Amino acid sequence: MLQQLFSPSVQHTLDIVGIFVFAISGALLAVRKNFDVFGIAVLAEVTALGGGLFRDLVIGATPAAFADLGYFLAPLLATVLVFFLHPEVERTQGAVNAFDAAGLGLFCVTGTTKAYDYGLGLTASAVLGMATAVGGGVLRDILANEVPSLLRWDRDLYAVPAIVGAAMVALCIRYEVLTPLTSGLAAVTAFVLRLLAMHYHWRAPRAWNRRSRVAEEDLLSPDPSSAG
Amino acid sequence: MLQQLFSPSVQHTLDIVGIFVFAISGALLAVRKNFDVFGIAVLAEVTALGGGLFRDLVIGATPAAFADLGYFLAPLLATVLVFFLHPEVERTQGAVNAFDAAGLGLFCVTGTTKAYDYGLGLTASAVLGMATAVGGGVLRDILANEVPSLLRWDRDLYAVPAIVGAAMVALCIRYEVLTPLTSGLAAVTAFVLRLLAMHYHWRAPRAWNRRSRVAEEDLLSPDPSSAG
Amino acid sequence: MLQQLFSPSVQHTLDIVGIFVFAISGALLAVRKNFDVFGIAVLAEVTALGGGLFRDLVIGATPAAFADLGYFLAPLLATVLVFFLHPEVERTQGAVNAFDAAGLGLFCVTGTTKAYDYGLGLTASAVLGMATAVGGGVLRDILANEVPSLLRWDRDLYAVPAIVGAAMVALCIRYEVLTPLTSGLAAVTAFVLRLLAMHYHWRAPRAWNRRSRVAEEDLLSPDPSSAG
Repeated sequence: MLQQLFSPSVQHTLDIVGIFVFAISGALLAVRKNFDVFGIAVLAEVTALGGGLFRDLVIGATPAAFADLGYFLAPLLATVLVFFLHPEVERTQGAVNAFDAAGLGLFCVTGTTKAYDYGLGLTASAVLGMATAVGGGVLRDILANEVPSLLRWDRDLYAVPAIVGAAMVALCIRYEVLTPLTSGLAAVTAFVLRLLAMHYHWRAPRAWNRRSRVAEEDLLSPDPSSAG
Repeated sequence: MLQQLFSPSVQHTLDIVGIFVFAISGALLAVRKNFDVFGIAVLAEVTALGGGLFRDLVIGATPAAFADLGYFLAPLLATVLVFFLHPEVERTQGAVNAFDAAGLGLFCVTGTTKAYDYGLGLTASAVLGMATAVGGGVLRDILANEVPSLLRWDRDLYAVPAIVGAAMVALCIRYEVLTPLTSGLAAVTAFVLRLLAMHYHWRAPRAWNRRSRVAEEDLLSPDPSSAG
Repeated sequence: MLQQLFSPSVQHTLDIVGIFVFAISGALLAVRKNFDVFGIAVLAEVTALGGGLFRDLVIGATPAAFADLGYFLAPLLATVLVFFLHPEVERTQGAVNAFDAAGLGLFCVTGTTKAYDYGLGLTASAVLGMATAVGGGVLRDILANEVPSLLRWDRDLYAVPAIVGAAMVALCIRYEVLTPLTSGLAAVTAFVLRLLAMHYHWRAPRAWNRRSRVAEEDLLSPDPSSAG
């Protein structure tokens, strides 16, 4: 049983914080898309809980999202906050991005350890840990009828920090050095990598010899409804 | 074992009716999107069975959609009907909407009780009951590459009647008064609320101090392919 | 235990080949949509493994996609190939289409037998077998924010060959004549039907008395980013 890296209450608090900041990003996109208050709540819930729900369905665990009331209430709190104060929340976009990066780091670590606890191999655990961290954002963009920002070349690196964090956890498990310290280090590494990617606008390369110029201009043209 | 609210055959008939009318709404959207006959069948099946499939995956039950042949055949019947008679079916849109409201009321009740039967808490059961009722429509809109009408501010209330019905069932379970009568009452309440929402065009508020006018005009402009 | 139609190593090799060619189709769409290298990898993985993952979630099996490292690595190999050589790969589109048809034939057969092994009825097994074969492509198109080509009337038949193959397997099970030979025959039938559908541009009919001309023109207008 690897999962008790931190004391249960510390772990739970970290989970709630991660869920809350992911929910903020979903709620803000919903406001930009002009959804009503229920649409904001749905997008906040899906963004915050979707990645963990996917992980739990794959490993056959009782979905944490439906087992813990706090997991369900945190996105509602984010909805209320964004509903009434969204210009203020958007003004603090830098802080939201930093929290989102923290959620990314935390979820790739807890996702990997939980998957390994349920019997997956090391590589599969790391992949599922990464999917836990990025899955909610992908579902958010699908519901909002946008190309997932995870896939777009014109967005700063998001998957790579999660991959690095998840791989670090898998390596720690492999060499039997997974402790609160080392998994905390993995989470912080993913967190810092994401902050650096945003600050320096690190981007991943596209395929060599691209020829589909039209698609590119399409993506470059200003799209006010999805501007981040 | 709460689930046997009605006699099994009554329950089964109600389920089939709900599945059938949901399938009609999927098939009609497929015709509007100009899909071929297989696209119509796929959209009918997904709309009718998607919400229940999601519920069964979350609670770990054998998906009813793959256990009961009638559940699979009802959407095919809806497909044939819409394929040959869709102008006539669209002319009866009022009747279809009323049946869809009935399906909404029924599914939020049966979804909540089934989720509780499988060990979820009261709040989680109500949430999953609501998801059962609205999930198929969300999947329908995702497959049709449209913003889910559940999330859009310019559509009449759809989630709220389902939430009310599911919450009534959860309260009845809490106070141990869940009987065929009280759950029937919950279904009827959701049904009537949805009818009223359509008749009076009840809508939910959007976020305060919206500034994203462009997105709004976007949504207001006539879009013939998705006009309801 | 029907599933051991072929020797395990032959079965495994066929699976890997099917996964690989499905991954190629996902990676090529990602390049056309101008995704970065991680987007290409995600779309390759989802296209190749999505159908089988859906099947395994429904029947409650441990997802093969997370149990076998080869299943995960084959799409990464496809990603590398498409990343560096995509003009060459696109020039061999005919070969890719033929391999994709082979994957379709193989997956509808193995999907149906696996579903039956896990206790589903014959009709449900055939439906899930077809869903296994076409599911990855649907998820690919949803992630790429396009109308699934499975549903569009202006694409050559894709679901029908898979339905025929899956139905043949179900009939063989029903009459207790499922052998490596007969299931091979079912796979080849689906494969050849798909090749013929592409060669002769077989298409399915749309609903009678369509009136939504606008949507039609919409679909007919050239869309360079999704041109197959």
